[in-house]
Amino acid sequence: MIPCPDSRLAAQIAFIVEIDALKSVLRQTLLTDGSRRENDAEHSWHIATMAFVLAEYADAPVDAGRVARMLLIHDIVEIDAGDTFIHDTKGHEDKDAREQAAAKRLYGILPADQAGEFTALWGEFEARETADARFAHSLDRLQPLLHNFETRGGTWTPNHVTADKVRALLPRIEGGSKRLADYARALIDESVRLGYLPEA
Amino acid sequence: MIPCPDSRLAAQIAFIVEIDALKSVLRQTLLTDGSRRENDAEHSWHIATMAFVLAEYADAPVDAGRVARMLLIHDIVEIDAGDTFIHDTKGHEDKDAREQAAAKRLYGILPADQAGEFTALWGEFEARETADARFAHSLDRLQPLLHNFETRGGTWTPNHVTADKVRALLPRIEGGSKRLADYARALIDESVRLGYLPEA
Ligand SMILES: [Ca+2]
Repeated sequence: MIPCPDSRLAAQIAFIVEIDALKSVLRQTLLTDGSRRENDAEHSWHIATMAFVLAEYADAPVDAGRVARMLLIHDIVEIDAGDTFIHDTKGHEDKDAREQAAAKRLYGILPADQAGEFTALWGEFEARETADARFAHSLDRLQPLLHNFETRGGTWTPNHVTADKVRALLPRIEGGSKRLADYARALIDESVRLGYLPEA
Repeated sequence: MIPCPDSRLAAQIAFIVEIDALKSVLRQTLLTDGSRRENDAEHSWHIATMAFVLAEYADAPVDAGRVARMLLIHDIVEIDAGDTFIHDTKGHEDKDAREQAAAKRLYGILPADQAGEFTALWGEFEARETADARFAHSLDRLQPLLHNFETRGGTWTPNHVTADKVRALLPRIEGGSKRLADYARALIDESVRLGYLPEA
């Protein structure tokens, strides 16, 4: 549809237009003012920006620019696979297969070299082995906690989420940053104290 | 409100929570499916991701990670200053003063070292002198063209925008990339041909 002078740029522009759909993938998280649900594109912007603000708290040295890049592209698979709510056990059963197929189709729109590069970066995020990936997960998990606190239990209350379920997410934050995990733990305790989150 | 173990992390978390408001700053641009207006946060995600996809077309060597970082934070001033429609001459008169005050307040929420760093990066974007800043502007201007093409003149038609007004934006794209400017020029011509954009 869009005129393109060569097939490489055509593929890149097609990818850029295709990923606009990430703005329509809704998460459970509410905006901090409670006005509406957050979408994956703006969530990705938020956590990528957090990478530059909070990099100093990574337990192992990280490349903040690389963490941001990973976070900018990590949710693109959800255009096809959808967002799986963190406390939805059933949805997590076939999540991997759905996301693998999505990665193949979506990153595959890019020229082969970039498709390989983006797929590898997404795979690195999913594998949670490198320092960059571990810290990226810390941020991805910390951000919704901030939103749930600001909205006084915004998505916890309607989904009957209890403190033990939220505390079960702490190891993922701790995998990249003990300091941010300590902060998240304090935030959960404070949420319980304020009545935003039931202990059980 | 949020419990914080020390004042440095407290300031950083306060900034992260504050900038959530960027998700509620609406642009004129429509999503490519025409369903609604785009907000500044998802726009910033889109163009930061474009930096990694299109970096090879920058006329001078750029650091894609740095361009992405610049693009992630460049619109934060619009939380206070609002988005000024590109074809709104009146709104542009006091844009600089409004954005300067906004930068001072918003980046100023961060600890002093990071406030300085973010303000400098935003200033570099605005000054359009470095290769990174020039290429960042190319992407910031190219993206809405793609959206207007995909929505068959989505924001051009209701705002009575003509081709000469859109062509007047080409030098900003050309400042960072002749190749992307050539592409944008072809896109404008094609938009005229298809009746999405009146020649005059
Ligand atoms: Ca802007």
